[in-house]
Amino acid sequence: MRNSKLRFILGWVLKIEACCMLFPVLTGLYYQEDATYVYLGVAIATFIVGSICTLHKPKARSFRAKEGFLVVALSWIALSIVGMLPFILTGEIPKVHDALFEIVSGFTTTGASIVPNPDVLSKATILWRSFSHWIGGMGVLVFVLTILPIESNQQGNTIHMMRAESPGPSVGKLVPRIKDTARILYGIYFIMTIVLIVTLIIAGMPIYDAITMGLGTAGTGGFSISSAGAGIYAPHIQVILTVGMIAFGINFNIYYLILLRRFKSAFKSEELRAYLGVIIIAIVLISFNIYGQVGNLWDTVLQSSFQVGSIITTTGYTTVDYNTWPMFSKLILLGLMLTGAMAGSTGGGFKIQRLVIICKNALNQLRNFISPRRVQVVQMDGKVVESDVVASTKSYLVLYIAIMGISTLIVSLDNFDLMSTFSAVNATFNNIGPGMNMAGPVESFANFSILSKLTMTFDMLAGRLEIIPMLLLFSPSAWRK
Amino acid sequence: MRNSKLRFILGWVLKIEACCMLFPVLTGLYYQEDATYVYLGVAIATFIVGSICTLHKPKARSFRAKEGFLVVALSWIALSIVGMLPFILTGEIPKVHDALFEIVSGFTTTGASIVPNPDVLSKATILWRSFSHWIGGMGVLVFVLTILPIESNQQGNTIHMMRAESPGPSVGKLVPRIKDTARILYGIYFIMTIVLIVTLIIAGMPIYDAITMGLGTAGTGGFSISSAGAGIYAPHIQVILTVGMIAFGINFNIYYLILLRRFKSAFKSEELRAYLGVIIIAIVLISFNIYGQVGNLWDTVLQSSFQVGSIITTTGYTTVDYNTWPMFSKLILLGLMLTGAMAGSTGGGFKIQRLVIICKNALNQLRNFISPRRVQVVQMDGKVVESDVVASTKSYLVLYIAIMGISTLIVSLDNFDLMSTFSAVNATFNNIGPGMNMAGPVESFANFSILSKLTMTFDMLAGRLEIIPMLLLFSPSAWRK
Repeated sequence: MRNSKLRFILGWVLKIEACCMLFPVLTGLYYQEDATYVYLGVAIATFIVGSICTLHKPKARSFRAKEGFLVVALSWIALSIVGMLPFILTGEIPKVHDALFEIVSGFTTTGASIVPNPDVLSKATILWRSFSHWIGGMGVLVFVLTILPIESNQQGNTIHMMRAESPGPSVGKLVPRIKDTARILYGIYFIMTIVLIVTLIIAGMPIYDAITMGLGTAGTGGFSISSAGAGIYAPHIQVILTVGMIAFGINFNIYYLILLRRFKSAFKSEELRAYLGVIIIAIVLISFNIYGQVGNLWDTVLQSSFQVGSIITTTGYTTVDYNTWPMFSKLILLGLMLTGAMAGSTGGGFKIQRLVIICKNALNQLRNFISPRRVQVVQMDGKVVESDVVASTKSYLVLYIAIMGISTLIVSLDNFDLMSTFSAVNATFNNIGPGMNMAGPVESFANFSILSKLTMTFDMLAGRLEIIPMLLLFSPSAWRK
Repeated sequence: MRNSKLRFILGWVLKIEACCMLFPVLTGLYYQEDATYVYLGVAIATFIVGSICTLHKPKARSFRAKEGFLVVALSWIALSIVGMLPFILTGEIPKVHDALFEIVSGFTTTGASIVPNPDVLSKATILWRSFSHWIGGMGVLVFVLTILPIESNQQGNTIHMMRAESPGPSVGKLVPRIKDTARILYGIYFIMTIVLIVTLIIAGMPIYDAITMGLGTAGTGGFSISSAGAGIYAPHIQVILTVGMIAFGINFNIYYLILLRRFKSAFKSEELRAYLGVIIIAIVLISFNIYGQVGNLWDTVLQSSFQVGSIITTTGYTTVDYNTWPMFSKLILLGLMLTGAMAGSTGGGFKIQRLVIICKNALNQLRNFISPRRVQVVQMDGKVVESDVVASTKSYLVLYIAIMGISTLIVSLDNFDLMSTFSAVNATFNNIGPGMNMAGPVESFANFSILSKLTMTFDMLAGRLEIIPMLLLFSPSAWRK
């Protein structure tokens, strides 16, 4: 590991985080809260440390893949440690493991909270939590790439960091230069967020709510900003939020295609069709299943659409307590937690793209069994998916199942029922937020033991960074020069 | 599909089944039960039909893989339809879907029952249920192969049937001729079963119990022969049963190596080590977890060993109601249901061998990520596992998850809790027998709806035949000549 380079990048991450903390400072000033000074102090200290780290530019040396991945994992850990300090120093979340859980839940766009009632938090802290979703949604390293003073001949360095932080089995460079790709992605992200927040305000949402809920929706985070959840907003606002959540679960490459007016290629995307198909099927099935309970078609569709959109995009806002739904609907939600959103979006989970690749490959194997002589390859959008991408996608599935299984076993030591245990792991590892029963929308993660919270903290990071960067941290050979 | 060949093989399957039915006839005669004549009548009628089918020897033509697999699937369905007739005709299980569930549960060595209290069944029927485990354990087609009058130059025909019926990712031919391999396997199976039954009788078990429980253990089936379960037997008999279950979960190739006095290669088997390793770790973890509840070291180890041996080998006998165990222990049992026993044993589940291949492959991918230049291959017992076996093992995992997921969703329409729903599917698909909660050891599958029972009947067959033969039934192109 090139230490000087790691130090330099970590320094930039800290400087950016310090700047981001000015938003809760402004919020605290506006609402005249004591928390203001805590956020200001942490921001200043962090900026100073970051500046020291970035004093010397490292010698230009190229990164290897494993180094890029380690840098990303360490950056996210540094980001979280600094980010939790205000929670502890304001005394709002005094315990270290709780504060760490909360901020990791923020940055990884999970939205699972150990605060049973968010009404007791200061406005500055609620904003910081929601803003952490927004920062984590697109990825902080991707942002660093847009401003990092590196030469274009060093692209080998940066593609690995982008690969580590961007969700999905492969990273599509929109334009030849990585730096430009990162700028385009952040540009789209920024504009879409502004549009969403403005729309919410126009629709009659209070400004503070519109900003925090908007940031959470854009990052597909989902921290509740009050104990009442999203059910208190008017139906038309719930519709806007539903559309917003689903929009941020779409691969940003599609928006870039739309910007380039290449509508045909945008709407031909097989992943997009699969994503929208799954959403529609899930809404229809759940609507049939809960109609008897709700008793009114409009409310049925509104409730099922909101929850389906919220879960598949791994946002995690809720308008109803779906714990009261029949088991069939709950299982569909559990399934959506696993599938997750599209690759290259801000959403988490296994990703629709991986699912499509794996299903196509399995069908090919069956076809191959019937007609052994025909050669079968996996195609997406008319292009052949390379066999090493297929193989690593299948290995990703294995690692995914292994982490899910081991985590569920550890959390089961708390001796809650299976639905609580499994859904808590599911909801954190896939960066959803609320699970079911004891981890459900009207409960909080405060009920779990310290061991479970630490396990789920790891899971949230492993889910957001797609496992491999977090596993490399534990591999001695990854650390060797 | 060559119809004449299919007819010929199905005819042999029916003739063998008719002969097998003489055992319940003898039992019924001994206990002077009315059921005797039902079994006798069905046996005679089946033998006549079978004889008609085998009147004309088909022209020698070679089978393709898909045809061999279809023959196996259809044979198992024919076997089940004939096998359920006595249940219906004696009036002991009057409904067709229940009788089908029960006999499929028997032949697939599952042992899940829709009879809440087996004490009401006739001795003939209880023996037939347990004997169906024994027949299904090694596979009826494998038995047909040992006696089928086919020439040795037609081996291409038979290897596909053996592949379809034998558990595991690849079939090891012990000797060059398939027919001889099948004979050796059935010989080992027969002798081990006799040894087990005799040992149980010497240990003081009633003769009827020893025969039925012995047949169920050998086939890793697990139908209860009384409402009291296996907990009524003395501790030393429970120990014999535990050892017996674990022995029949071992790949029969290992016993063949031992017969050849090649002890070194037998005990060097990586799959054997993994299998025994998983068993020991599971016993230790569960013992620690339930010790406080049981309060006595000997009972703790006895109970945990019996249940671990019973579940990992997919037998499904129980000495205690493990529903009262803490969630951690229940989850370990759920995990063992998924892993299953060794390939080439009578046990079901995903199979340890597949698990080892998949884990090694995933580790290779991680290593490959750290050192991209080194080429990584999966090795088992010092030999390279071919890449198409690795690929099809991973695809098997995908199909396995898909069937598990869809079945769970269908069964969830019964609106039981998650543990009942998931464990019922898990226990039937992996051919275990009892699940948890509503499907637990002190309950029966009578509580589930007809749709759920039919789904689980399909799952039991899909689990026993390892998915592909059952899926081919629904593929029009598989039926084409």
